[in-house]
Amino acid sequence: MSATRTAPRELLSPGSIAIVGASDDATKTAGRPLRFLRAGGYGGRVYPVARRDTVMGERAYPSLAALPERPDHAFVLLPTGGAMEAVAECARLGIPAVTVLAGGFSETGPEGAAREAALRTLLAGTATRLLGPNSIGLANLHRGMVLTANAAFAEPDLPRGGLFVASQSGSMIGAILSRGRQRGLGFGGLVSVGAEVDLEIGAILASTLDDPEITAYLLFLETMRGADALRGFALGAAARGRPVIAYKLGRSPEAAELAESHTGALAGEDDVADAFLRDLGIARVDTLEGLLEAPALLRRLPIRARGARPPSVGVVTTTGGGAAMVVDGLGVRGVSVQAPSEETRARLAAAGIEGGHGRILDLTLAGTRPEVMGPALRTLLAAPEFDLVVAVAGSSSRFQPELAVQPVVEAAGDAAHLAAFCVPEAPQALTMLAEAGVPAFRTPEACADAIAAAFARREPRADDAPAPALPGPGRMLDEAEAYALLAGLGVPAAPHAAMEASAAGRSPLPFPYPVVVKVLHRDILHKTDLGGVALGIGSDAALAEAASRIVASVAAHRPELGAGRVLVQAMARPVGEVLLGFRRDPQVGPVILLAAGGVLTEILRDRCVRLAPVDEAGAREMIAEVRGLRALEGYRGRPRGDMAALAAAIAALSRLAARPDVLECEINPLMVLEEGRGVLAVDAVLRVAGEAG
Amino acid sequence: MSATRTAPRELLSPGSIAIVGASDDATKTAGRPLRFLRAGGYGGRVYPVARRDTVMGERAYPSLAALPERPDHAFVLLPTGGAMEAVAECARLGIPAVTVLAGGFSETGPEGAAREAALRTLLAGTATRLLGPNSIGLANLHRGMVLTANAAFAEPDLPRGGLFVASQSGSMIGAILSRGRQRGLGFGGLVSVGAEVDLEIGAILASTLDDPEITAYLLFLETMRGADALRGFALGAAARGRPVIAYKLGRSPEAAELAESHTGALAGEDDVADAFLRDLGIARVDTLEGLLEAPALLRRLPIRARGARPPSVGVVTTTGGGAAMVVDGLGVRGVSVQAPSEETRARLAAAGIEGGHGRILDLTLAGTRPEVMGPALRTLLAAPEFDLVVAVAGSSSRFQPELAVQPVVEAAGDAAHLAAFCVPEAPQALTMLAEAGVPAFRTPEACADAIAAAFARREPRADDAPAPALPGPGRMLDEAEAYALLAGLGVPAAPHAAMEASAAGRSPLPFPYPVVVKVLHRDILHKTDLGGVALGIGSDAALAEAASRIVASVAAHRPELGAGRVLVQAMARPVGEVLLGFRRDPQVGPVILLAAGGVLTEILRDRCVRLAPVDEAGAREMIAEVRGLRALEGYRGRPRGDMAALAAAIAALSRLAARPDVLECEINPLMVLEEGRGVLAVDAVLRVAGEAG
Repeated sequence: MSATRTAPRELLSPGSIAIVGASDDATKTAGRPLRFLRAGGYGGRVYPVARRDTVMGERAYPSLAALPERPDHAFVLLPTGGAMEAVAECARLGIPAVTVLAGGFSETGPEGAAREAALRTLLAGTATRLLGPNSIGLANLHRGMVLTANAAFAEPDLPRGGLFVASQSGSMIGAILSRGRQRGLGFGGLVSVGAEVDLEIGAILASTLDDPEITAYLLFLETMRGADALRGFALGAAARGRPVIAYKLGRSPEAAELAESHTGALAGEDDVADAFLRDLGIARVDTLEGLLEAPALLRRLPIRARGARPPSVGVVTTTGGGAAMVVDGLGVRGVSVQAPSEETRARLAAAGIEGGHGRILDLTLAGTRPEVMGPALRTLLAAPEFDLVVAVAGSSSRFQPELAVQPVVEAAGDAAHLAAFCVPEAPQALTMLAEAGVPAFRTPEACADAIAAAFARREPRADDAPAPALPGPGRMLDEAEAYALLAGLGVPAAPHAAMEASAAGRSPLPFPYPVVVKVLHRDILHKTDLGGVALGIGSDAALAEAASRIVASVAAHRPELGAGRVLVQAMARPVGEVLLGFRRDPQVGPVILLAAGGVLTEILRDRCVRLAPVDEAGAREMIAEVRGLRALEGYRGRPRGDMAALAAAIAALSRLAARPDVLECEINPLMVLEEGRGVLAVDAVLRVAGEAG
Repeated sequence: MSATRTAPRELLSPGSIAIVGASDDATKTAGRPLRFLRAGGYGGRVYPVARRDTVMGERAYPSLAALPERPDHAFVLLPTGGAMEAVAECARLGIPAVTVLAGGFSETGPEGAAREAALRTLLAGTATRLLGPNSIGLANLHRGMVLTANAAFAEPDLPRGGLFVASQSGSMIGAILSRGRQRGLGFGGLVSVGAEVDLEIGAILASTLDDPEITAYLLFLETMRGADALRGFALGAAARGRPVIAYKLGRSPEAAELAESHTGALAGEDDVADAFLRDLGIARVDTLEGLLEAPALLRRLPIRARGARPPSVGVVTTTGGGAAMVVDGLGVRGVSVQAPSEETRARLAAAGIEGGHGRILDLTLAGTRPEVMGPALRTLLAAPEFDLVVAVAGSSSRFQPELAVQPVVEAAGDAAHLAAFCVPEAPQALTMLAEAGVPAFRTPEACADAIAAAFARREPRADDAPAPALPGPGRMLDEAEAYALLAGLGVPAAPHAAMEASAAGRSPLPFPYPVVVKVLHRDILHKTDLGGVALGIGSDAALAEAASRIVASVAAHRPELGAGRVLVQAMARPVGEVLLGFRRDPQVGPVILLAAGGVLTEILRDRCVRLAPVDEAGAREMIAEVRGLRALEGYRGRPRGDMAALAAAIAALSRLAARPDVLECEINPLMVLEEGRGVLAVDAVLRVAGEAG
């Protein structure tokens, strides 16, 4: 993680702009920025730099040095080679902000990576900060500063408002602007962050925190870069109550690979990024519509406290089938729609409202009247059991919004935990709802996506900043050393004794037979492959024999190790086993990982990742998210595992985040014994900082 | 499964209509049908039946009997009680089609179920066929017959076209109509099928197969009803090359529960419904947008043959980030975007096209020109490796469709396997694409959803009609009898011998020790719970002891069974195990189920269901869909299981579909041995038709 650079004021609010490589042809990419600045009514000074006297009728200048003033911001539209020279010129002249359109850097291979390194060198120690390269530009709509080559900005009266967009894909700023306009959204600024060689997305976003016109942030991410800067920004946004919503590519392996080839950055593991975003209070959506429609919901719905009970959503509708689409979408995203409580049902009955006995309050076609919908909605909104109430309006919302939509509008004043979905195409109803401030969704998928993303957020913690790991490749501990370190954290191991193989079975063990015997050497990770493990040893004689067989087998495979020691360990009888891991992700820092044991959960990727450290409440949430661990919770009459001890072990291992000397650790398996009997590590790999062994 | 009733011509094409319970108030539910019929320009005769002289200025009649003619179709808008009387009157008068709006039948509980039974009795043996109850009506737009109380039909010039909609949710016909209009789609007919007490959705759909104006079908399903009728319809639609697209609720357990409470029908298991739909060539989409946007794609993309290689999708784009949304969406749905082949890359290079070395052909901003996009697209379309080529156009598509969209339009004439996604809001581009017949998508999610649904379809088989099971609760076979029946099918069991417990260990076994001993009795399913199993028996003496212990334990728990026999079985050393099941689903008929063994895959629901029978190619597809089975395919250096023998066993068990005497069978586990060594059942439960034992 690199030191965060601050985005200069001149990036988004320049008083003067140079367009280097401006084209005279308004339809060409390099013709667009000047055209858009003029169409946008930008009030500052604009200087085209080109090899001609005029550009689109405006005076042009032969070079940056020839300008009548040092511009605040230079947008460089030249191809890669010329762009490098222009950046060097910007740095020489002390131009505060430069944006580079050209690609041809580390996304293209080793040669491009060398060019990128040269670019960094050009900028080092200068007053010039760079947006890009590979940035299609940026816009500050409140100042008419439409400094971009993105073709979707080619229209007058771009929609101004409180949304701020930062995107790792240049095309997406145009897509979000145009799709947002169609939904009546307004934007304060939009930035294509490009390759983030100098200014990282977090730094750019952070520079807007003091802009009072910004109300919410939309992020389009292809990969995780600049975690520190992003963390600082997210804390600032949370402190100001501004929601941050991210669409991040990479749910599928194909997209992760694509992000790498497209951006030149390592994509990292998607669930690590997921943990990072949610831990910073950033809502991650899975649909493009959800990205656009979530802000209205998130501006009203507070981030839930850590350790709060699972969220509860109530649904009232005039159409069971339409509402079921939302319920289904929420269900597959792990958010459960709950039936009204007995008390709430009694209150509904007292108001003369029948809504069936099911999970949703279905007023049916016959209840499509304000005198039914109104009291029903108000009763649900007043009920203590719901964190959110969703009103789903049927076909009447298209031409008769007075029937089932007007009551939603009227209820909006009293309750922030209200959202709406209109099943038909219903533009008039959506306008009414938007004007009343009710988050309203156009598709059941966006509705479910935004709600699930809102509830997945966690209050960001100011103490999350991780201790940076000590440098160097590090070295492995052997299994006995690893257990000792883990014991210090509070993670117990099964009783064990380390000894020379020649001593095994010659003196009494401090624990009863049967035992397992394993070769003990810090450089042997896959003991079984070398014949280095014997299970179910029941006597001193068998132990001596097994120990000698093991060292012989290991010596035959890896004579150079001189491995002569073994670890003898009591055998546990667990209810089940888990994999518990800690590591330092190069992008987001220390993370803790929990998975059900065994090869199947590895294949099925049934695991949960969180930023470390987590407390026991966080650990319990992790346990709940690994579906396979239900097998340990008394599933179908099986004995229940000691889940409290498991949560304690997860929290304990996650405290390695504060130990910069520990680089990574994997306990596989950690045996979960019956309730009240604890957990026991029976294998562990641990790498600490320092010289390679 | 009941006998299929045929929908009368008068349902969708009546010459005269009676509206029973028509309201004089045009804004009321019961006022809508007359208003809509008049607005739609329906050319037939319309008779309001109401207790007043006129309805909306038209002459009204006091009863159906008082009409000047027997109407072809009566739409009954009365509440439940009155509706029952009106249906009785329709039946008496021989009115061919009657549609009932009222609810209050089996969705409301036992009293409603009794009412529903009475309704069936009313209709039995008459010439009257019923749509509903709980139907909001139907429309035949080509005849202006807008016979519905759905408020979304309240507009002139409803969009006519080739789509036919059938929905189990009444509200959704309005939602699909209005959302489709907004997308430029046109409709032939829309039917709210209601509770399908008489006419089932399949029969209604089948009645349109000879209508030449219908080009595709959209189904909105809450539950599976009338599988026979649906099967007949689907075969007819496939024979005519008309795609059928279904949105079915029930991916989440919450929605399945909701469908039951909403419709009164058992929802059944969602993956069984999924198997049914795909086996009939019906494309199941997961998004509402996908339902609307899939027809254009499916009309061009043929159903893939059974056993074809996995589909291959190529992507060409001017925006890597925008295209990655589609790639990601396809990836999570199991459809992999493939890089162009070496040959194709060579052809691209020869045409001067650079597109990176990644999975997609990314022309970048610099390639946003027809002279690049055109040849690139034509080269991919000509490449033999792609079943579909998706063109993803960036921001230029909003205002400069001539750059990257016009080349797509021009390529459309030559290739049916082409689709497009515009990343920004781009109405002009979408219109151009629609006019050229190119399936174009508005969201990356709908794009991925429709493509995945298209490729998941299977050619429907005319021989799918299952042998109906023999009636009765049936009786269990004991384990030895089950093995004998399975052996006849070609599913081998581990070597075993059945004997009296008192004889166990007294004579040599026909297979070597160690063995497992199990109590043998047809009425004991959970042997372990009764102490009825002993593993790892290594000698005659141990066998005699174990057998006697087992019968003693079982006798202590269940003395009434008089269980005195045991099954002795050789122990297998498998690579892994699976669960293989066959049963007769009450809705869709015989199905075969494959899951990885063990409690984890049960919790994770990692399983695959298909309609039975399947051939070995189908069985191999099933194996590929159970993710956990990758552990048997040489995962991380493990030995490879005998997957060919597994496929043969799946196909063999599925042939039980043709054995009406077998009701269900579960082999759990079926041991998968090393490659070349086959598979072995080591436990089996089998229920056959006949008297309960």
